[in-house]
Amino acid sequence: MRFRVKPLSLEAGGKWIVILNEADAEELGVKSLSRVKVRFDNKVITAIVNTTSYFIDHGWIGTYREVTSNLGLKEGVEVYVEPSPPPSSIQHIREKLRGRSLDRNAIYEIVYDVVHGNLSEVEITAFVASLHMYGLSLEEAAAMSEAMVATGERLELEKKPVLDKHSIGGVPGDKTTLIVVPIVASLGYTIPKTSSRAITSAAGTADRAEAIMPVSLSISEMKEVVERTGGCIVWGGALHLAPADDIFVNIERPLQIDPLLLPSIMAKKKAVGAEHLVIDIPTGRGTKVKTIGEANLLAKDFIRLSDLLGIKAKCCITYGEQPVGFTVGPALEAREALELLSLSKDVPDLLDKACNIAGMLLESVGEKDGYNTALAAVKRGTALSKLREIVEAQGGDPAIKPEDVAVGECRYTFRSTRSGIVLWIDNNRLVEVARSLGAPKDKGAGVELHKKVGDAVKPGDPLFTLYAEKEYKLDYTMDKIEEEGTFIGVGGYMDMLIQKVEEIPVYSRAFILER
Amino acid sequence: MRFRVKPLSLEAGGKWIVILNEADAEELGVKSLSRVKVRFDNKVITAIVNTTSYFIDHGWIGTYREVTSNLGLKEGVEVYVEPSPPPSSIQHIREKLRGRSLDRNAIYEIVYDVVHGNLSEVEITAFVASLHMYGLSLEEAAAMSEAMVATGERLELEKKPVLDKHSIGGVPGDKTTLIVVPIVASLGYTIPKTSSRAITSAAGTADRAEAIMPVSLSISEMKEVVERTGGCIVWGGALHLAPADDIFVNIERPLQIDPLLLPSIMAKKKAVGAEHLVIDIPTGRGTKVKTIGEANLLAKDFIRLSDLLGIKAKCCITYGEQPVGFTVGPALEAREALELLSLSKDVPDLLDKACNIAGMLLESVGEKDGYNTALAAVKRGTALSKLREIVEAQGGDPAIKPEDVAVGECRYTFRSTRSGIVLWIDNNRLVEVARSLGAPKDKGAGVELHKKVGDAVKPGDPLFTLYAEKEYKLDYTMDKIEEEGTFIGVGGYMDMLIQKVEEIPVYSRAFILER
Repeated sequence: MRFRVKPLSLEAGGKWIVILNEADAEELGVKSLSRVKVRFDNKVITAIVNTTSYFIDHGWIGTYREVTSNLGLKEGVEVYVEPSPPPSSIQHIREKLRGRSLDRNAIYEIVYDVVHGNLSEVEITAFVASLHMYGLSLEEAAAMSEAMVATGERLELEKKPVLDKHSIGGVPGDKTTLIVVPIVASLGYTIPKTSSRAITSAAGTADRAEAIMPVSLSISEMKEVVERTGGCIVWGGALHLAPADDIFVNIERPLQIDPLLLPSIMAKKKAVGAEHLVIDIPTGRGTKVKTIGEANLLAKDFIRLSDLLGIKAKCCITYGEQPVGFTVGPALEAREALELLSLSKDVPDLLDKACNIAGMLLESVGEKDGYNTALAAVKRGTALSKLREIVEAQGGDPAIKPEDVAVGECRYTFRSTRSGIVLWIDNNRLVEVARSLGAPKDKGAGVELHKKVGDAVKPGDPLFTLYAEKEYKLDYTMDKIEEEGTFIGVGGYMDMLIQKVEEIPVYSRAFILER
Repeated sequence: MRFRVKPLSLEAGGKWIVILNEADAEELGVKSLSRVKVRFDNKVITAIVNTTSYFIDHGWIGTYREVTSNLGLKEGVEVYVEPSPPPSSIQHIREKLRGRSLDRNAIYEIVYDVVHGNLSEVEITAFVASLHMYGLSLEEAAAMSEAMVATGERLELEKKPVLDKHSIGGVPGDKTTLIVVPIVASLGYTIPKTSSRAITSAAGTADRAEAIMPVSLSISEMKEVVERTGGCIVWGGALHLAPADDIFVNIERPLQIDPLLLPSIMAKKKAVGAEHLVIDIPTGRGTKVKTIGEANLLAKDFIRLSDLLGIKAKCCITYGEQPVGFTVGPALEAREALELLSLSKDVPDLLDKACNIAGMLLESVGEKDGYNTALAAVKRGTALSKLREIVEAQGGDPAIKPEDVAVGECRYTFRSTRSGIVLWIDNNRLVEVARSLGAPKDKGAGVELHKKVGDAVKPGDPLFTLYAEKEYKLDYTMDKIEEEGTFIGVGGYMDMLIQKVEEIPVYSRAFILER
């Protein structure tokens, strides 16, 4: 059938969508979410149909922006439309819905069609939900990673070996990457690090790094930085390294499920050419992975999947029951990392964690005594010089000093009312406080701890300082802390009671692991 | 935050959707598919957010038609927007995704939010997919039915008992309802029958009935017809009896899954007040349920679910390996039903099936020898008179005769080239042929069989006649039959070979059971 085109001003998130009047759709023999071929001027595309009862008149076809621009349509031109069979990827999705496993080709077809806008939201959601419910075999996970890499951009670096690190997240204040990257690069290795922004946390590594340098680089800019300095810390979101993942994440987020976590992480590592990888799994009650047993199972999955993808991966299970270092919030954390590398502040847990991870990477490529090699790079100041090089290459000020990093001017320090020792720090509550102060959007907002778990406390001792960029956010947060209590527990050495549960507790929020 | 309104000309299928610029969404702390409260002029609604990078400017909010009209918005007016927590129904959906069972309240909340546009397509799809994968317990199924009834229109009839029938479909030519309804109503009982149109078949009962009378009635018109005549045959699609089902079906169709089949059917029966119900389960290789064992399992589920809903249900497992009667296609079938009731044509299988189903209904309300009571109503002509009453009450011509029903003028009769007996009729292929002739849209299109399974055939005997309203559809179909073969197998009495499979067969299509 022939239709006249009514271009819509809407975009469909990369999907190919057209709108037909219901009567026309019936005449054509298609339903909502059926496919049609749309022909114009020797070009043809396959689009998903939506139907409407009133807004598109008989004989007209509404075209979303993707369709309009691809076919070069203008208001009123005529296109020829005919029903088209659904892509074969839908058959594969239906098979997964029935619990059958998918082979490499089937997975590639699905991922290809996801990236190229050939599948509707309903179909992609059904796929993600079935992966969540039935799980992925190791082979399926590897095929997912490979398909995500094949349908995205890749970073090709000359200088091998390529090293990389990743943290599954969940522990606040984790600015380890800002230390590991300069250590590794300062020792002559290549480490093209991409990072995410905060989703539910107070700061992602991209947010932290952005407090001292630009991080929204293109893939060619990223390549230049790495070729010049050996390392980088850039935001992965704009690089299109595994564009399928962005589409899956938009569906996983509202459902709070994450069946593609491992394949997505590994796809992004594979896409930058990583050959040696250390994955940090923060573990403990206040983080995503609660027990060492769980952490080992996850580590096993990571290592087996990496093997199949030709990446030599090791996992590092780290203590996650309290923040890493003393600060939480983008600028406060960037400042603390600079202070550590400048040797102007002692942050023992952060230094220890960074040297362990850097050390494992160094030993993976044959260095002896990786931990102390890494530590020496910090103590000698070569890691600091390397960070300055990277900052400059990414477009920041290489002379930046810790005190140059702007943090919030609105501050308030909470003090202890009792004596004892710090028994616990509630990561989740701490993150809520930092977010309510404005983090991660207000880069200078956050929390500085003055005491950590095990520290002795006397009445009047400062426990933590709140930082905000806006006075009302500070006030609001202080009220909230007055009302709901603090996130630090101070008590006697052998106090046993943690909490009394006398009503049905409300849902705690689910986690989205970082990728 | 305050935004200026840009009303969009699009509708969102009953969902409440607004579009924000990505930067504004970030400022507000919401992502795509998050919820926001939108306030205007003392009214407030909760809408789902979509984000865009270009089409909505900073400071503006795009409102879909549902939002625009509900809040009474105009271009450029200011609304106040704030983040809103997701509805608690999402927590229930997430629980089902984890494989947990849902209680009545949880199910009601989900169905309520589906009907009221509070859930996104992603969320509804995840729910439907999880029901498909984990299945529903009997209690969950009953709660689904009740929730679907509670959120839709209901038919309240004075005259009890209310009887009803349902077929799960799958056998072509099944015009049984056109016989059962007048039989039951002619005996003084109430039978408010709603029917569906064809989705993948050649004719739904609503399509058949429409060849002799209007079927798109409102619920009040339907009530009037039933109060006057005791019965009706109307299209269920416009009655809003279980509006949640229409939304679920739009998601199930492209995925070809149907986890809500039983609850949806029973909801529609409950909504019209049915107290006694017979469910027809056509069984056999060429239909949806292949074996008698399967049919019994399905019957058990129907009866148990009906019990919980306070409906006395019986199931009738019927022979489905070939069409019912001789005709397939809306007008041809309506004509055949009129011929049977006029006693002008002998259609033994149709009459037997109708008398069995009507008889089971009659015995359910205490009549003795239901089969013969039903048969007598046909033989006496009272069923025909009752059908004419119903036709008149629904706005058709009560004097209609079989030959008044217009059937396609373009015809071609295929004849046998060999002798033997009819060994099989392939229902699926027959339906494809009828659809390719124009059914169900072209009401006069279809197929008339001259022989059925077991009939003896000589070379030159007519096997079947094709009917089309348009010559090119007839030509196209004849070419197709030449190329792909026919749907009737004629062979010797003990011929064994059905088919040789020498290549990997292509997927056969999946079924959507009728509801």
